[in-house]
Amino acid sequence: MFSPLIENLIQALRCLPGVGPKSAQRMAMHLLERDREAAAQLAERLTLAIEKVGHCSKCRTMTEAETCALCDNPNRDASVLCVVETPADVLAIEQAGNFHGRYFVLLGHLSPIDGVGPGDLGIDLLMSRLDSEPVEELIIATNPTVEGEATAQFIAERARGKGVKVSRIAHGVPIGGELEYIDGGTLAHAFSSRQVI
Amino acid sequence: MFSPLIENLIQALRCLPGVGPKSAQRMAMHLLERDREAAAQLAERLTLAIEKVGHCSKCRTMTEAETCALCDNPNRDASVLCVVETPADVLAIEQAGNFHGRYFVLLGHLSPIDGVGPGDLGIDLLMSRLDSEPVEELIIATNPTVEGEATAQFIAERARGKGVKVSRIAHGVPIGGELEYIDGGTLAHAFSSRQVI
Repeated sequence: MFSPLIENLIQALRCLPGVGPKSAQRMAMHLLERDREAAAQLAERLTLAIEKVGHCSKCRTMTEAETCALCDNPNRDASVLCVVETPADVLAIEQAGNFHGRYFVLLGHLSPIDGVGPGDLGIDLLMSRLDSEPVEELIIATNPTVEGEATAQFIAERARGKGVKVSRIAHGVPIGGELEYIDGGTLAHAFSSRQVI
Repeated sequence: MFSPLIENLIQALRCLPGVGPKSAQRMAMHLLERDREAAAQLAERLTLAIEKVGHCSKCRTMTEAETCALCDNPNRDASVLCVVETPADVLAIEQAGNFHGRYFVLLGHLSPIDGVGPGDLGIDLLMSRLDSEPVEELIIATNPTVEGEATAQFIAERARGKGVKVSRIAHGVPIGGELEYIDGGTLAHAFSSRQVI
């Protein structure tokens, strides 16, 4: 119904997560009718980011520099290393604000069905960091999913061989949550992981 | 928290309607981590569309050609002209599928407070079409808002001077709607516009 260039743009906008045909159409109309300047800027920044952004050579998070700002910061505690699945997880933990150690980003989780093995997660790089850096504790903060747990187990076994203390973040009832609305799996986990007070 | 190029991309994604900081972050992560090819295509199509897409010289809808596919189609009924506010309105009417005439897109509505006057809506172009084309009926399908109604009144007065039959699409209870949930304004309109059956 629209002209080819507009149809192509609508189609391309659907690559964004959570954007269906209606939203893509609304976005295309908005950009073309009302905000071509912002659209041009978006195109330019997309191109620049695709071209330049790679991974930190130490922690594998995304950055356009050789190493990221967190790895470069000398004030971070090098004795604690936190393993997460994605760069967004780093952000979430930083926003919580009580962890002051360093990170390692797996960029995924073990998933044999999708062909994701230890090599894809940079686990050798992680192990070499345990050898070369004064890491005393490895905190594994992968997601509490089947794959995340399997990944955590795999890393824990490899790291224990290096004489490093390995811990897993706690899973249970979220703060402010109401028991009535918590799923059974979480509640069962909260009971089995109960702590003496 | 992210590196500057990523932060800039997240910021730029917020120009999209309905995209807040969290979604923008999720979109940037998705594009950079999982789908750089689609991201490159999006950037390219955005640039191309911004550069090439203009307005149809007859109906003012968006197109990269001199005139749009609907204006070029010789099978459309030239005796009925439908006036809408936006190109998306044309799409909605085409999808309903029972209108076979031609369109005129105002690209907005009269809004003195925003400095939008008859000149910005191409009303002179519309009037010259009424003179030069065999239009018998002008159907005004602007939105049933205060501005849309004012625009409809303004156009109706101008068009009546040309000896053209002017109509307004019906407003009332939507098909499949339940009276219980319809707002008072719509219901009042539905009563005052009741028709003998």
